[in-house]
Amino acid sequence: MRFTFLGTSAGTPTAQRNVTALALNIGESRDWYLVDCGEGTQHRLLRSRHSSAKLKTIFITHVHGDHCYGLPGLIASANMSGRTAALTICAPDGIEQYVRATFAHTDVHNLRFPLNFVRSDAPNFYYSDGSVEVSAVAMSHRVPCFAYHIKEIPPNHIDEVALDALGVPRGPLWHQLQQGEDIVLASGERVAASKVCRPAWPARKMIVGGDNDQPDLLSEALQDSDLLIHEATFTEDILAKVGPQYMHSTAAMVAKTAAAAALPHLILTHFSQRYRKDPSKKAKTHSVAELFSEARELYQGNLLLAEDLKSYQLEKDKSLSEL
Amino acid sequence: MRFTFLGTSAGTPTAQRNVTALALNIGESRDWYLVDCGEGTQHRLLRSRHSSAKLKTIFITHVHGDHCYGLPGLIASANMSGRTAALTICAPDGIEQYVRATFAHTDVHNLRFPLNFVRSDAPNFYYSDGSVEVSAVAMSHRVPCFAYHIKEIPPNHIDEVALDALGVPRGPLWHQLQQGEDIVLASGERVAASKVCRPAWPARKMIVGGDNDQPDLLSEALQDSDLLIHEATFTEDILAKVGPQYMHSTAAMVAKTAAAAALPHLILTHFSQRYRKDPSKKAKTHSVAELFSEARELYQGNLLLAEDLKSYQLEKDKSLSEL
Repeated sequence: MRFTFLGTSAGTPTAQRNVTALALNIGESRDWYLVDCGEGTQHRLLRSRHSSAKLKTIFITHVHGDHCYGLPGLIASANMSGRTAALTICAPDGIEQYVRATFAHTDVHNLRFPLNFVRSDAPNFYYSDGSVEVSAVAMSHRVPCFAYHIKEIPPNHIDEVALDALGVPRGPLWHQLQQGEDIVLASGERVAASKVCRPAWPARKMIVGGDNDQPDLLSEALQDSDLLIHEATFTEDILAKVGPQYMHSTAAMVAKTAAAAALPHLILTHFSQRYRKDPSKKAKTHSVAELFSEARELYQGNLLLAEDLKSYQLEKDKSLSEL
Repeated sequence: MRFTFLGTSAGTPTAQRNVTALALNIGESRDWYLVDCGEGTQHRLLRSRHSSAKLKTIFITHVHGDHCYGLPGLIASANMSGRTAALTICAPDGIEQYVRATFAHTDVHNLRFPLNFVRSDAPNFYYSDGSVEVSAVAMSHRVPCFAYHIKEIPPNHIDEVALDALGVPRGPLWHQLQQGEDIVLASGERVAASKVCRPAWPARKMIVGGDNDQPDLLSEALQDSDLLIHEATFTEDILAKVGPQYMHSTAAMVAKTAAAAALPHLILTHFSQRYRKDPSKKAKTHSVAELFSEARELYQGNLLLAEDLKSYQLEKDKSLSEL
């Protein structure tokens, strides 16, 4: 599982950070997934290796502009570039209306590919395409907002010795079993795929959070996850000054939840624009290092701060590498 | 009159050029005007000296996304940055509906400043704010599209000798005359502002075109203009291959119109992404120099190709300087 941060700033872009978007690849395929799509996401993609023709599915966490205002331009540009494959967009209520109203008012009438909208705020939302399965966890924010729990579906490894012993002839029946389908032999004997196949490696699992002021809402899902990418808009001192009305998390809040879940990898993102790499007293900016220090005190796992255009790989052994 | 190109690419952004937008300042004021607002305009503004708080009025040429998809983000960011001054948006039908629908679906309910929409496709559209007057010229494109004819209103220079001879006392009456208002003296004598005032310098005038496949529609307005900024999406050979259905101009078409009008300054912009500074046979890209050469053959005035973040000043003597 490879992923690239396309935007890591809260609310508005800065010279260093764009608003939220994340590109995700599963395995070696050039097909990829996009989680959130703030304005300028298509511009960031010009600087990564992701082709709009190979974009499989978009997941949107919520309707705020810094998470979705890049959708119309991304879709229109993919259309101009000749894309013909259907595009699925999993998103809460409002996103389909926003995109369709935009197109209706701006002369986009005949896309060359269908847009399939799936409501991710529906009860029991579940997405699967053979490579990945995705469910949604409700967050606490000013509008309905969701974290996406993304699990790889590893290829099946087949137990050749067992199949030979059972007398299953090589060929289509093996293929069916490998796809997870049970088979019936000529003898009438039933062979369950689960008995003779197992995942080639343990599935890699990550959660990409939306905007949220209650990280503990993810506690249960984190028991089944290797990595959490979550907003940490503020440090505690700034949240105390700003007040809780924007419904965002601090680095400490997220770190506490991750520590309680004994989570291996935590990446913080979606930083208020007051946090800079080169802070200045004059501009009243703070160092991003303050966010790291605050989280580090509470969380001893692998902790990282997201940066635009940095890419990581969650390896099969569940370690995390920077690419 | 100072202006900065914020985007010079047609349809989709490239690594070097964003989609269309132009920032304009009149005189020494920090107030500024925006003509078109493609996606990522607010990102480009992070690299110029224009403050969203000082943005006075936006002019949109037409509803295509590469000319307006940056509006919602620009407005939302200005709101988050604390802007309170009303913002006027002059645009054809569709733009207000697009912006309002976007905000309705994406939880933008209480802007801190009013948005005043003015329909620039109305007959006899005319905008004036004391610094500048703007009218619209209908273009020929796939949707209603307009060029903006922008004329500076220079300060009035008052004829002191004449006023002393007429016995007009210095003070409020002089101020009224300078603002262009006629006055009546205590004697009952009427003094016309036009008799005792004249512009401190000849008004500078420019036309910023929208997408258009008939540059000659501007012939009349060009008689009253120092500078034209116009799209030249293609060269003639590429237009012949692509076909006329997108309704864009070639460099030759615009050059011919400018030459016929004996226009002093012409800046071409809105280039198809096939034109690059570093063309490659492999990528089937062309050199932007082809656009320049094609126009140069037909137009002998001051000819320039627009580039993102380049700024120019139309001087009081009507010369054009790069800043």
